[in-house]
Amino acid sequence: MKKLINDPANVVAEALAGFQAAHPDVRVDHDNRVVYRADAPRLGKVGLVSGGGSGHEPLHAGFVGAGMLDAACAGEIFTSPVPDQMVAATQLVNGGAGVLHIVKNYTGDIMNFEMAAELADDIPVESVVTNDDVAVEDSLYTAGRRGVGVTVLVEKIAGAAAEEGRSLADVAAIARRVNENGRSLGVALTSCTVPAAGRPTFELADDEMEVGIGIHGEPGRRRVPLATAAEIAGMLVEPVVADLPYERGDTVIAFLNGMGGTPLIELYLMYGEISKQLAGRGLTVARSLVGPYITSLEMAGCSLTLLRVDDELLSLWDAPVRTAALRW
Amino acid sequence: MKKLINDPANVVAEALAGFQAAHPDVRVDHDNRVVYRADAPRLGKVGLVSGGGSGHEPLHAGFVGAGMLDAACAGEIFTSPVPDQMVAATQLVNGGAGVLHIVKNYTGDIMNFEMAAELADDIPVESVVTNDDVAVEDSLYTAGRRGVGVTVLVEKIAGAAAEEGRSLADVAAIARRVNENGRSLGVALTSCTVPAAGRPTFELADDEMEVGIGIHGEPGRRRVPLATAAEIAGMLVEPVVADLPYERGDTVIAFLNGMGGTPLIELYLMYGEISKQLAGRGLTVARSLVGPYITSLEMAGCSLTLLRVDDELLSLWDAPVRTAALRW
Repeated sequence: MKKLINDPANVVAEALAGFQAAHPDVRVDHDNRVVYRADAPRLGKVGLVSGGGSGHEPLHAGFVGAGMLDAACAGEIFTSPVPDQMVAATQLVNGGAGVLHIVKNYTGDIMNFEMAAELADDIPVESVVTNDDVAVEDSLYTAGRRGVGVTVLVEKIAGAAAEEGRSLADVAAIARRVNENGRSLGVALTSCTVPAAGRPTFELADDEMEVGIGIHGEPGRRRVPLATAAEIAGMLVEPVVADLPYERGDTVIAFLNGMGGTPLIELYLMYGEISKQLAGRGLTVARSLVGPYITSLEMAGCSLTLLRVDDELLSLWDAPVRTAALRW
Repeated sequence: MKKLINDPANVVAEALAGFQAAHPDVRVDHDNRVVYRADAPRLGKVGLVSGGGSGHEPLHAGFVGAGMLDAACAGEIFTSPVPDQMVAATQLVNGGAGVLHIVKNYTGDIMNFEMAAELADDIPVESVVTNDDVAVEDSLYTAGRRGVGVTVLVEKIAGAAAEEGRSLADVAAIARRVNENGRSLGVALTSCTVPAAGRPTFELADDEMEVGIGIHGEPGRRRVPLATAAEIAGMLVEPVVADLPYERGDTVIAFLNGMGGTPLIELYLMYGEISKQLAGRGLTVARSLVGPYITSLEMAGCSLTLLRVDDELLSLWDAPVRTAALRW
């Protein structure tokens, strides 16, 4: 295992210390491993809390800031945070208008966020679960579909709605609308190594890739021989488009995510292929996002997320955002 | 070789097509492989042109935009662009105030940019060469020190100076001042594979790392056993600080760069260690930048760049920038 770490047991705590040093305008509650906006709680604004296992950076801490999340809870690598962390985050960001929990659909996360919502019983909490991964119906850590790339889009768009001063019910409705109109699929060229495990989560032969990979290296749909970028684009676009389905004339945001170990030059090349195929299917890409935003440590590969948008979602996407990882 | 590509011969052209699709607000001259600002040339503004081998993304194309570069020339992977590309870029961005070439110190780049400056003889051109890598004096592709991380800082700070309407001589002087006050050193945990070569540029044993690595995988200072993040931070901070030298009381910008295959969680952890060591040496970190900005394909590792700043450089650093990869 070749990693820039000290002790595998301290990776998350030490990474949070480094995050704090790099981003002094964001606060870190180190006891609870909660990253939160320096100006939290904002009176009258719905607070947005997310979180999950670490190892997917910049998700979620990198999305804390104006126009996006108010707080993020960091679990151990690929492991849900515990309810106490989520309660602390909920209390930190509650400005009197209630708090929205954005939860990726993994059994541990769901259970712990539910418990946290009960424990924070004096604070109105709504939860939105993301489950956009079309790869598999149930999975190693999931009942139902996994929550993956659309989570980034939910955090951005719901964050903008909250910033406008909308009510908890409205912000939750927007978040659910994003999830319902979003679909994703990923492909892995290599595995990744959780520091505490010390060896790759799974093995992939030198001439193989895994289509439908989960962000923790969970099994996907199938293993196939390594293919060209154009072929891989087809393997991602076809099932994603067919699932919702996205139809000729639809306007979408296209998000091509790097899994952590894929260089940007390959990601741009892939995006070129995907963009051609989307155009060929009569979809209009109104906005795009290309880069490593929801990663799996050093895994090589990518995932495609499409989001069907209307004018309202697009204008919330375009609204200002100022976080470590997303800014405009 | 596991890469998201089609034909190794077409990687750069296809990646530029994808870059164009992802960033419709930037223009691409595909014949000349030049990425340039949509509003170029800007009358009365000094034009900033950089470029070099591809494989270091987001450098340089990702830094084209308001407040930074006006144009970037993309060579083949790890290979200098040719003079014709640089001439085309120079002509595209010349708004009558002259053009600054920002050139990393590699023999091919130096020679080709010099020839381009001669060929564009009706346009006043100044060149600034970056040579901040303290690892080695001469190198595989270099007479003198290699230009690495400080190039990003030169492009940002000189870009801000140009945006203020300063003269070509002034912008060049600022760029040189940044280079003179910047020093870098990198470490590789793994090698990287140039698509056209099809196998790793160099070999590193499972328990080894290379200190002083070049951004093309050129040999560094020494190979040492894999060390902890704290130890690696020391191996980077000590030689960088000793070289300028940076002295107790100095104010710096600290830039911790990911080499392409290193996950962000490790980069933040490393930055935490580096930040402690800089504080221990009495250096004040006024600003930091942590992320993969000048990469070596999928190489795992990082590089540290320090830049000693005064109020002027700091205010130019803080000035607005709006590019694909850097925005505030």
